[in-house]
Amino acid sequence: MALDLISVDDHIIEHARVWTDRLPVKWRELCPHVVEEDGREFWVYEGNRSETMGLNAVAGREREDYSTDPVRFADMIPGCYDPAARVADMDRDGVRASVGFPSFPRFCGQTFLMAGTDRELGLLCVQAWNDFVLDEWCAAAPDRFIPMVIGPLWDPEGMADEVRRCAARGARALSFCENPAKIGLPSLHDDHWDPLWRACEETGTVVALHIGTSGSIPVTSPDAPVPVGIALAGTLAQAACTDIMMSRIPYHFPNLRFALSEGGIGWVPYALERADYTWERHRYWSGLGDDRKPSDVFRECIWVCFIDDVAGLEMREHIGVDKIMWECDYPHSDSTWPHSQKRAAEVLAGLPDDEVAAITHGNAERLFRWAAT
Amino acid sequence: MALDLISVDDHIIEHARVWTDRLPVKWRELCPHVVEEDGREFWVYEGNRSETMGLNAVAGREREDYSTDPVRFADMIPGCYDPAARVADMDRDGVRASVGFPSFPRFCGQTFLMAGTDRELGLLCVQAWNDFVLDEWCAAAPDRFIPMVIGPLWDPEGMADEVRRCAARGARALSFCENPAKIGLPSLHDDHWDPLWRACEETGTVVALHIGTSGSIPVTSPDAPVPVGIALAGTLAQAACTDIMMSRIPYHFPNLRFALSEGGIGWVPYALERADYTWERHRYWSGLGDDRKPSDVFRECIWVCFIDDVAGLEMREHIGVDKIMWECDYPHSDSTWPHSQKRAAEVLAGLPDDEVAAITHGNAERLFRWAAT
Repeated sequence: MALDLISVDDHIIEHARVWTDRLPVKWRELCPHVVEEDGREFWVYEGNRSETMGLNAVAGREREDYSTDPVRFADMIPGCYDPAARVADMDRDGVRASVGFPSFPRFCGQTFLMAGTDRELGLLCVQAWNDFVLDEWCAAAPDRFIPMVIGPLWDPEGMADEVRRCAARGARALSFCENPAKIGLPSLHDDHWDPLWRACEETGTVVALHIGTSGSIPVTSPDAPVPVGIALAGTLAQAACTDIMMSRIPYHFPNLRFALSEGGIGWVPYALERADYTWERHRYWSGLGDDRKPSDVFRECIWVCFIDDVAGLEMREHIGVDKIMWECDYPHSDSTWPHSQKRAAEVLAGLPDDEVAAITHGNAERLFRWAAT
Repeated sequence: MALDLISVDDHIIEHARVWTDRLPVKWRELCPHVVEEDGREFWVYEGNRSETMGLNAVAGREREDYSTDPVRFADMIPGCYDPAARVADMDRDGVRASVGFPSFPRFCGQTFLMAGTDRELGLLCVQAWNDFVLDEWCAAAPDRFIPMVIGPLWDPEGMADEVRRCAARGARALSFCENPAKIGLPSLHDDHWDPLWRACEETGTVVALHIGTSGSIPVTSPDAPVPVGIALAGTLAQAACTDIMMSRIPYHFPNLRFALSEGGIGWVPYALERADYTWERHRYWSGLGDDRKPSDVFRECIWVCFIDDVAGLEMREHIGVDKIMWECDYPHSDSTWPHSQKRAAEVLAGLPDDEVAAITHGNAERLFRWAAT
């Protein structure tokens, strides 16, 4: 019997007119648009070319050809950028619903913080992406796409406003930065973000922290093989998890919910135990709150997900079966597409039905307040 | 019944005359020596004061007082710097044998690379520490201390020479840097280190990589509570492990042995699975060797250890019971001293006797070629 799969981490490749369709004509040359030169297509934003066209959108390719990002839309399968084709690819893979992260804006909209200088334009670009997701991508199949939005990272009040605007229109999650200190912003320990947390808490908007939103994958040395950094990417989720568990956030915003995206789950039992061990020894002098252990904070407010993580599933009781979700990562190189049903069934074999239901879709439905249809 | 414990990670605090006792008199003012001022004691080396006296040598203190490093020898219990007192503390804790890391030189001798400029003096300082360990510390109780040495990090041929000199005198291990690229040296992926690997392989010298030898603990942001970084220190071991698993080293030096020191074990099942998953998808284009999986490399040449790691022990079959060792971390804040027997018995409860024997001492005896007495 097929599994009822909800993927909490997929990637939307924006089509070429996402911004030019929406921004006032005076911004037409400055807002993100696609130009073609020497057989390549490039995104251009505020006069600067983006290095990447598809951010590792390699679904449908052979593994031997994973090294290069696509350089044209024609290099990608249409499910990357066309919601109807995406639904067809989800059908083929047996995936009922999907949470999609941005690509050109990067996973939490960092592009508009770091590659742009005009904040008026930046906010319009953020809002245009959100309108694209709400009105075009998700609207193409409202029962298949769980809306997630981004915010203007340079302005916590502006982020709060955008969260409220989008929540009123159906958004269930905000993609935010796993470690804003690494991209030049106040850290998760700073009260700078309180307006944002308040808006997310009040609207029930989940805060999704995707690996890599703090900069890039962890590079051990310039000459290390690239897969070293890919293999270590989960340590970014562990860092974000530990930051949150030892932050003031859960004391001030007890109903805020975090989802660690593409971080894996196998490290969680160790990370919780290690955080508790450290807290027990060092809370007396270090200013940590002393009425709840880090692992208690995790169990209250952090959710995790996996693509293919046998060890993590074996240790699920140490994580909490109610905190584990599944992800497909379409169309990136880690994805199990188009074999997700087969692979998910393999890694979930032997689990009781109620646990399989929670992990494949039930936890995601509850976290994102997403009713089965 | 008492456990037969060998600790593969403890810390030696050098007494004040380690270098002045050994170096020619012309170096007396430049080599590391202790000065006293305003009731504090400082190490001075090449005219510069060291920030720390005891590198977190807090054994015997209450946890409320963990925040400050000791500022005088008198602030420490004698077991920190006196081998006879150390043996008495090991007896009290039920620890049979111990591998000790340096303190003033930092864990792998980085001080002589980074705080010194005179390489002739630096080599003499390295050799003096090694002579201190071999002739004074370990000689005080040869059946209780497993000799580990350091090398002149700026000179791989010099390191090879020092490894051979010390191996001939009984050294079983070399403390090296978990990621030399982070301290300005060629990375673990560079053939620069081949002379060193060759010397270690030929002499059966274990290469110990202690967390923090690549710089410091992982700081997520300047305002993050210090325990965040302490809790995340194991990610440094995961990074070193992944570097080695994906490096050329095991292809060229198949008999080289690495010990990841103070890195914990709970992350290992996830790290192996994740490395294999990444290798399977990316080896085709990334230049990774394709005849052995990262986890195969781990099982051949990497050993790990734990202080207190319940989740890791539960997953021991995924790590390899023969790869797990115990550590005490005396006299640092993570140590279980003087309750190691009690705590080790708790975390090892339920394991078969042969596995307990392997983990508490058998694996360390085999790896370090250390006969029970």
